[in-house]
Amino acid sequence: MIVSKCTFQVDSSRKIFVFQKKISDVMDSPLEKARRIFHIDNRTVANVMSEFYSTLLLLFIGIGIVHQFDLSYKQLNTWMQINIGWGLAIMFCVYTCSKTSGGHLNPAISLMFYSLGKLPLSHVFYYSVAQTLGAFIGTALAYTVYLDQTHHVLGGLQIASGPNGTATLFTSMPALHVSNTIAFWDQFVGTGFLALFVCVITDKRMEIPPGIHALLVGLLIAMIGMAFGMNVGYPINPARDFAPRVFAFIIGYGWEVFSYHNYYFWIPIVAPFFGTVAAAWSYYIFVGFQIPDQPQNYIKEDRTDGDSVPLKIT
Amino acid sequence: MIVSKCTFQVDSSRKIFVFQKKISDVMDSPLEKARRIFHIDNRTVANVMSEFYSTLLLLFIGIGIVHQFDLSYKQLNTWMQINIGWGLAIMFCVYTCSKTSGGHLNPAISLMFYSLGKLPLSHVFYYSVAQTLGAFIGTALAYTVYLDQTHHVLGGLQIASGPNGTATLFTSMPALHVSNTIAFWDQFVGTGFLALFVCVITDKRMEIPPGIHALLVGLLIAMIGMAFGMNVGYPINPARDFAPRVFAFIIGYGWEVFSYHNYYFWIPIVAPFFGTVAAAWSYYIFVGFQIPDQPQNYIKEDRTDGDSVPLKIT
Amino acid sequence: MIVSKCTFQVDSSRKIFVFQKKISDVMDSPLEKARRIFHIDNRTVANVMSEFYSTLLLLFIGIGIVHQFDLSYKQLNTWMQINIGWGLAIMFCVYTCSKTSGGHLNPAISLMFYSLGKLPLSHVFYYSVAQTLGAFIGTALAYTVYLDQTHHVLGGLQIASGPNGTATLFTSMPALHVSNTIAFWDQFVGTGFLALFVCVITDKRMEIPPGIHALLVGLLIAMIGMAFGMNVGYPINPARDFAPRVFAFIIGYGWEVFSYHNYYFWIPIVAPFFGTVAAAWSYYIFVGFQIPDQPQNYIKEDRTDGDSVPLKIT
Amino acid sequence: MIVSKCTFQVDSSRKIFVFQKKISDVMDSPLEKARRIFHIDNRTVANVMSEFYSTLLLLFIGIGIVHQFDLSYKQLNTWMQINIGWGLAIMFCVYTCSKTSGGHLNPAISLMFYSLGKLPLSHVFYYSVAQTLGAFIGTALAYTVYLDQTHHVLGGLQIASGPNGTATLFTSMPALHVSNTIAFWDQFVGTGFLALFVCVITDKRMEIPPGIHALLVGLLIAMIGMAFGMNVGYPINPARDFAPRVFAFIIGYGWEVFSYHNYYFWIPIVAPFFGTVAAAWSYYIFVGFQIPDQPQNYIKEDRTDGDSVPLKIT
Repeated sequence: MIVSKCTFQVDSSRKIFVFQKKISDVMDSPLEKARRIFHIDNRTVANVMSEFYSTLLLLFIGIGIVHQFDLSYKQLNTWMQINIGWGLAIMFCVYTCSKTSGGHLNPAISLMFYSLGKLPLSHVFYYSVAQTLGAFIGTALAYTVYLDQTHHVLGGLQIASGPNGTATLFTSMPALHVSNTIAFWDQFVGTGFLALFVCVITDKRMEIPPGIHALLVGLLIAMIGMAFGMNVGYPINPARDFAPRVFAFIIGYGWEVFSYHNYYFWIPIVAPFFGTVAAAWSYYIFVGFQIPDQPQNYIKEDRTDGDSVPLKIT
Repeated sequence: MIVSKCTFQVDSSRKIFVFQKKISDVMDSPLEKARRIFHIDNRTVANVMSEFYSTLLLLFIGIGIVHQFDLSYKQLNTWMQINIGWGLAIMFCVYTCSKTSGGHLNPAISLMFYSLGKLPLSHVFYYSVAQTLGAFIGTALAYTVYLDQTHHVLGGLQIASGPNGTATLFTSMPALHVSNTIAFWDQFVGTGFLALFVCVITDKRMEIPPGIHALLVGLLIAMIGMAFGMNVGYPINPARDFAPRVFAFIIGYGWEVFSYHNYYFWIPIVAPFFGTVAAAWSYYIFVGFQIPDQPQNYIKEDRTDGDSVPLKIT
Repeated sequence: MIVSKCTFQVDSSRKIFVFQKKISDVMDSPLEKARRIFHIDNRTVANVMSEFYSTLLLLFIGIGIVHQFDLSYKQLNTWMQINIGWGLAIMFCVYTCSKTSGGHLNPAISLMFYSLGKLPLSHVFYYSVAQTLGAFIGTALAYTVYLDQTHHVLGGLQIASGPNGTATLFTSMPALHVSNTIAFWDQFVGTGFLALFVCVITDKRMEIPPGIHALLVGLLIAMIGMAFGMNVGYPINPARDFAPRVFAFIIGYGWEVFSYHNYYFWIPIVAPFFGTVAAAWSYYIFVGFQIPDQPQNYIKEDRTDGDSVPLKIT
Repeated sequence: MIVSKCTFQVDSSRKIFVFQKKISDVMDSPLEKARRIFHIDNRTVANVMSEFYSTLLLLFIGIGIVHQFDLSYKQLNTWMQINIGWGLAIMFCVYTCSKTSGGHLNPAISLMFYSLGKLPLSHVFYYSVAQTLGAFIGTALAYTVYLDQTHHVLGGLQIASGPNGTATLFTSMPALHVSNTIAFWDQFVGTGFLALFVCVITDKRMEIPPGIHALLVGLLIAMIGMAFGMNVGYPINPARDFAPRVFAFIIGYGWEVFSYHNYYFWIPIVAPFFGTVAAAWSYYIFVGFQIPDQPQNYIKEDRTDGDSVPLKIT
């Protein structure tokens, strides 16, 4: 019936054909039938589900990477694979959420988007809970995959810290010569760089193709691990650090995972929130707000083309 | 003659010129002449040929990578190159099939597409046979390239397992301290992640540019090797594991390649089929089905542009 | 009111809708309100701010990478991560400036653009000062993050050169067997390759999508470090080498950071200026000027499509 | 004058404005003035110049990578950087030629394009000479950059082969346990994979965005080095192997660089020509010719969009 009303030029009517074709395609496929059953209309619930699911996947993969690194005595993974592997894990998990919640996977990033006026405060809370829950379950799943290897290497011994400490399989345990002040600054800086370049990547005025946003975020994680991974191991994510710490506590590492290093555990929870907000705004003040607008009566011809010349249309 | 009928606006007629130009180009070139000789009209045959050819290439390259790793005592390749190298091999082989069969290269992935209603069950069978045959021949070809090196290092000795075992040149042989239960779970998980993110990448609602789909699949393989490569060496593909195992049996490794580790050999054949289907559906239920549709009377202006605003056309 | 005047075809009017939607969006968001406060109209000031900010970020990250490399005795970073890490740092910092100053981050690159007639000479001066200042502050910030680690490893000793010399944490200190002549040639070559391929990447006739320009520049840096990093450690940037050298002088490494190696310090400041200009012009003479124009009465149909066929429009 | 004749719809006339703007831009800039002086109208000469220049750059960078690898006793570069570094070098050199000669950089690839009917035989000859000359000069330039390091490490001794042999700084010198038969097969296979996937990448029916073709070729080189680099070090390019061998002969390595390993030197010159042609045609027969055409009266709506649906236009 849309076509019958069509009085447009050829160029427009073609689009209508496309549109109709798609609707019919959608109706026929089994996947679309299942979609009608499982689809949730409430966007908040759907987005929270996405954050839960993706953070679960992220920790499932990420804790797997760390286990492979530690349990093989750095024979199978080196620090390079910690960087690249976590980067790829973030990349795929952000892609997963890219059309629903956007893929924060990190309470501090959610807070940053609130501070920029792009997310309601209530969502920051919902997302954070979902992310932390997902991180916990993801950690547990990764643990099961490496159950035999862990038993083989640790022999049942679960010592949190010290020369034979293995809580680093799950969470950050800084060396004794790093003070908590520097640890806080380190987490502020590391998470700050994450937030800063996430703003660069997603800034619409930057015109970076959305199809590679997640790819760039993955490379960003790798870079942070190469530059600021030495002090405490770049958790840069409250959910990623806290949930596995609770898991380590439960499976027998004991209270020391919290008390170690003068109760260091709160630092990778709190510092990232300050880091993301400060860094995001520093970006906007120094660069983001300074990107020139296109003149009001000009339209860029083709936004994917660097050569394009703005054109008067009036 | 098409042009003579042309009463369209300039914008449309331009397209017609393009079209005509292409037909004439096609007629003239020697490659197109050869195409008319070799082109097979039956799409099933052509797709099966593609799967055979690409899985052959995949194992030719991949077994080469493993040989270089093992035969140089990890001097020329490290575990990093196992990850990156296999990732690149998958990437190029998926690109190769991207316009014919799609590049499954893996019976478990073919089954997943069947479970999603995107491939007839008969094709799963044809593809699996082609993939396994291709994998066998690819293994044999890689073996010939490293014939001298193999003889130099092994000195003719072909011991399947144990401290001097070298069947890992071809197929997965897990360490003794990894139980078959964990091996099954490991293969379920590893292949699951493969399937899950393949669904993310190829989901049309994700709007990831098709030109980088294969690139992302390559990175995905690398990531799985960094996270879940330690237990059994991430075969995550029944054809990739079984065909070289048969080849190893034939060239003299003996029955032990099957009987080792309490007849472990069936695990990387069976577990992936469960893993791919379960993971694919978990993705669709948690995220894929929740991606909002564009409103029915809206059309996105430019799908490669994140800024684009849906527009009423009625 | 624009729409009311609209007498265009549907295809054009759609664009106008897009345009109007954007203006209203912009007005509402908190970020855009802040933009109206912080926006600087003077383009020169804004661009100089961008260069300052991005070079600050670059050295903050880059000096962090080098510290992690040296202070962990190459356990956490290897030479590979020096290459990849600096490459990623450049990439993100170039993306940051891509819509303001363009992201030179390097006085020698600014001079190159002047020699190509793309930047006024005065801007080369402003940019160079901003880049050097930014580099200095970025170095200082990275230093603070690794304060504890530095103290732990060096124990307060700050020896510039020799077997226990650690000024390489900040700046280039070539080995004794490399003459200053070779060092000059090395810096000429290294910065030359940087400039040459920056010209390739940004040459409009190359039609490389602008969204991946910064990505390619990052890979370029990594490549230079793999090919020409051995002689003096590829500073290839006067600001990157000089500012941290001054910082090292200030924090106690003493005059030796300048006098070492027969006053080598001026070489990575001066050689890059010659290298960039010579290499850029060599590219244009051998290749850039030889890229054929599209015939005057032809327009490429779709510039992102390799298949596209030029079409007569007259 | 074009505009004055303009009676097209807005959509078309916009394109004309773009066109005019570009011409005037071009006229004004200093770079375009220089272009009018240096531009060579003869396309064959221009393309040969491109091949010469880019192969020079390729060897300049590539020989630098190998020198850094060998002269630092694998401390600064590992085999991984040989793979990635050469890959990046190829990538940038192919980008450089992408709008002139296309960037073969390899006589065997030029022959392959002849066999596919895409290059006249005379051009294969011209290109090969230019590539070999460029490779020679590039080698010489890289040698000068590492003059001091070479002298420091070798102490003036230039021994071609054996435990202290260093001719591998320039050219391939296979281990004694690799027969020349296997070496031939290895070069046939290695160059074959290069050619095969170059055909995949550049096949128009594959619709891979041209802006990432060179990137993929770079990754391809890295992959070949990971899979088939062990036997003779993957020269896979007659120009890349022969020219530096002549250079090594001249600077004092003596006749042994040719006579070594039973006059192996001709193998990486001859085998690649067979490998590229055989592999390219195998690709077209198994896959390339089987890619289905779009139906004659259908036009794809948007070729960068995987969702696009062919539409009738008649």
